[in-house]
Amino acid sequence: MSDRGNMADARPDEELIDATANDQAESRHDEDDRLRPEYVTAVLDAVEDGDAERARDLVSPLHPADIADLLELSPADRRGAVAAALGDLVGAEVLSELNDYVRDDLIGDLAPEQVAGFAAELDTDDAVAMIEDMDDADQQAVLDALDPEDRAAIESALSYPEESAGRLMQRDLVAVPEHMTVGQVIDYLRDHGDLTADFWEIYVVDAMHRPVGYCQLSWILTCPRSVAMADLMKREQTLIPVDMDQEEVALRFQKYALISAAVVDASGRLVGMVTVDDVVHIIAEEAGEDILRLSGAGEGDINEPILMTVRARLIWLVVNLGTAMLAASVVGLFEGTIERFAMLAALMGIVSGMGGNAGTQTLAVVVRALATNQLTSSNTVRMIGREFRIAATNGATLGTLTAVGSYMLYGRLDLSLVFGAALLINNMVAGLAGVLVPITLERNNIDPAVSSSVFVTTMTDTMGFFAFLGLATLFLR
Amino acid sequence: MSDRGNMADARPDEELIDATANDQAESRHDEDDRLRPEYVTAVLDAVEDGDAERARDLVSPLHPADIADLLELSPADRRGAVAAALGDLVGAEVLSELNDYVRDDLIGDLAPEQVAGFAAELDTDDAVAMIEDMDDADQQAVLDALDPEDRAAIESALSYPEESAGRLMQRDLVAVPEHMTVGQVIDYLRDHGDLTADFWEIYVVDAMHRPVGYCQLSWILTCPRSVAMADLMKREQTLIPVDMDQEEVALRFQKYALISAAVVDASGRLVGMVTVDDVVHIIAEEAGEDILRLSGAGEGDINEPILMTVRARLIWLVVNLGTAMLAASVVGLFEGTIERFAMLAALMGIVSGMGGNAGTQTLAVVVRALATNQLTSSNTVRMIGREFRIAATNGATLGTLTAVGSYMLYGRLDLSLVFGAALLINNMVAGLAGVLVPITLERNNIDPAVSSSVFVTTMTDTMGFFAFLGLATLFLR
Repeated sequence: MSDRGNMADARPDEELIDATANDQAESRHDEDDRLRPEYVTAVLDAVEDGDAERARDLVSPLHPADIADLLELSPADRRGAVAAALGDLVGAEVLSELNDYVRDDLIGDLAPEQVAGFAAELDTDDAVAMIEDMDDADQQAVLDALDPEDRAAIESALSYPEESAGRLMQRDLVAVPEHMTVGQVIDYLRDHGDLTADFWEIYVVDAMHRPVGYCQLSWILTCPRSVAMADLMKREQTLIPVDMDQEEVALRFQKYALISAAVVDASGRLVGMVTVDDVVHIIAEEAGEDILRLSGAGEGDINEPILMTVRARLIWLVVNLGTAMLAASVVGLFEGTIERFAMLAALMGIVSGMGGNAGTQTLAVVVRALATNQLTSSNTVRMIGREFRIAATNGATLGTLTAVGSYMLYGRLDLSLVFGAALLINNMVAGLAGVLVPITLERNNIDPAVSSSVFVTTMTDTMGFFAFLGLATLFLR
Repeated sequence: MSDRGNMADARPDEELIDATANDQAESRHDEDDRLRPEYVTAVLDAVEDGDAERARDLVSPLHPADIADLLELSPADRRGAVAAALGDLVGAEVLSELNDYVRDDLIGDLAPEQVAGFAAELDTDDAVAMIEDMDDADQQAVLDALDPEDRAAIESALSYPEESAGRLMQRDLVAVPEHMTVGQVIDYLRDHGDLTADFWEIYVVDAMHRPVGYCQLSWILTCPRSVAMADLMKREQTLIPVDMDQEEVALRFQKYALISAAVVDASGRLVGMVTVDDVVHIIAEEAGEDILRLSGAGEGDINEPILMTVRARLIWLVVNLGTAMLAASVVGLFEGTIERFAMLAALMGIVSGMGGNAGTQTLAVVVRALATNQLTSSNTVRMIGREFRIAATNGATLGTLTAVGSYMLYGRLDLSLVFGAALLINNMVAGLAGVLVPITLERNNIDPAVSSSVFVTTMTDTMGFFAFLGLATLFLR
């Protein structure tokens, strides 16, 4: 019996008892698989009324990922009560699915022994994610409460840098020697059925425990027992160094369409494996965070404490205030011209603003192309040429449009030509800055998503004002 | 013997012959696993010299994904020559890894029989991706050249909407009845070893071929032969309706950490499966495209024909030109005030620009939260309250900063108060517009990433000018 809304969609002709359950599933999820607000309210009301049993009845059919969503959707000041009412429905798996801030908030109230109990149930990587942000004393208390084997695994993972493959990897894996046959591997797996978490591939290692090949489980299942692993395995494989950054790991999984990959230490020995389900959320995060960085929105996590968010955004706004004042000082140079031709004040914002828009377009494309390794030294020159031609075409089009438009409005040929020329010039500045700034920053190992837009906006603002007011000062009579 | 740079990193103590090969691998890839420009140039030079053999020697150790990168990094006018020189190194797998525009360009020159040959080698989903953008006549010619079985599979996939699960799914899969035992399943798989592409899970179906459960391969391998599938399988599973949008499919894979999922038709029958490796690039694309949409950069594909790019960006710029003129007309209302106080012209850009920055921060956060289903009806009110408080705090801080700064600069209390108040007001406008606009668009089924920033910028520009110049007109003497 399924409890998912999507299953209900797919099986409209189920018998009556299923239909009832499906209706219930439909009443929990909307068509986009989000929890319905009425459902969330019903759970919150049950908790409010002190009716823990009703709350548990409502929640028990949910997948752990949905229970995590439910807690995130609950107001921060009522989450503790909801979690308490749900009791063991909020298990280790729910905690591992929770947003970091929400989880840290919830486990902050628990005894170290309880946290250790959850950690022991989880894969190493999820257990590490749960306790890595605790302060040292709390973390030590949790570690002390773990049994020696789990503790050793987690401590070892914590010894690797944050966001490295070492933190991400699972230490339970299946590694067999090359001389084993398919039949021996199957017998070994049957004897050690509980030896590991989910696995999709097994690794073949040499006497030094260094990987020499890997084997998908489907190959083992479709082969006679007598085949040797050496003949079945694929020798080419992507090995992940244990200190590789998780973003790099995610890119390799994406590029080579990996399901799992062996992690090796500096001497080449197999120390763990990373599986694609642990990488998928990193791929999504890394791809999504450029937009937040480019906009100066910091982490952009809606569960972040509000003061941290205020601080992150304020830093960015103050930096931009500085660049805006720089642009304003350019305007200040031309106060005499503006006093004579007040319409310039109205029009100059169009020149700088259009440059900003064109620069942002180029920036977005270049930052994405750099992040996805599509833009490398091999095609940099071509990319610059491409953006130059786009900027020239769009600048000429917009310049013509605005020149004609302003001539119709003000009937002044000199003003129209100055306006159109300034727009063309600023579009060219925008296009070139939009491609050159992020490439230069990347070459100097500065994240182009974080810093580019300050530089580009400064250039389009100041050059927009300078070109327009400067030309106006020279040519308007 | 590995040919990957990363493997070389991981095995520094290999014997001599490996070290040589590793050096070669190092000379192909940089530390971020991108092809080095020197290597790309060497291949291009070999092709230029007509030395196809040298080009093939250089390229043959590459993974298909890297050969695809090599073709993308080659200048567009030389790609045909490179592909011709590489011959069968550019196989079906390379084509399926290529950027759409680059692939369409390359296969445009091929005979339908050749394209059909490639399509026959690929999984259904990759074959469909290869031919779905061809014009009808070419597509029909390719279909005619396929053998009946492949043709039927591809035609059936093409009958589903673009970007739906039906296009994405693999039709080869393993489905067994509930009464089979583990031993019978293994025997069946051994007898039909070549029946399918990569698979990670098998599906258990009823007499109507409707899924009733699924089973990871590792469960089968770790169980005695006598266990019945009915006892081993997990009954709760995420079923994907065949017409579900691929973005929705990707979100389910992410949320429930799926490796593969069964696809069902309207009557609930199993018609295919989607595997995570086909979803990973969708997850990355969907997460990355918000930044391009929010910036008005269209598709943002650097391989897109330049005229298509110009057109996509120009439409956006012209729309923004309209809103900039609207803002300019607000400034025009206050020309008298600006003639009297020319420094207003310099400062007004700061007010509108800072509002734009604050609005973009909020927009980025809200658009991401909507895209990841973190922001739903259940927490909308809370989110608006959160952004309101952030906007008020940052607006008050920036207002105070600028008021004090401008007082020190101009020594005019009235101007400073007007300036600071305008900044506070425009920050509030930005924060509220930044959260209300995308939520309103989303509720009306308009993609908030595409349309939000035009509305928000229009509001921050016009309100920034209006508040600042309006207050100045009222209070400056």
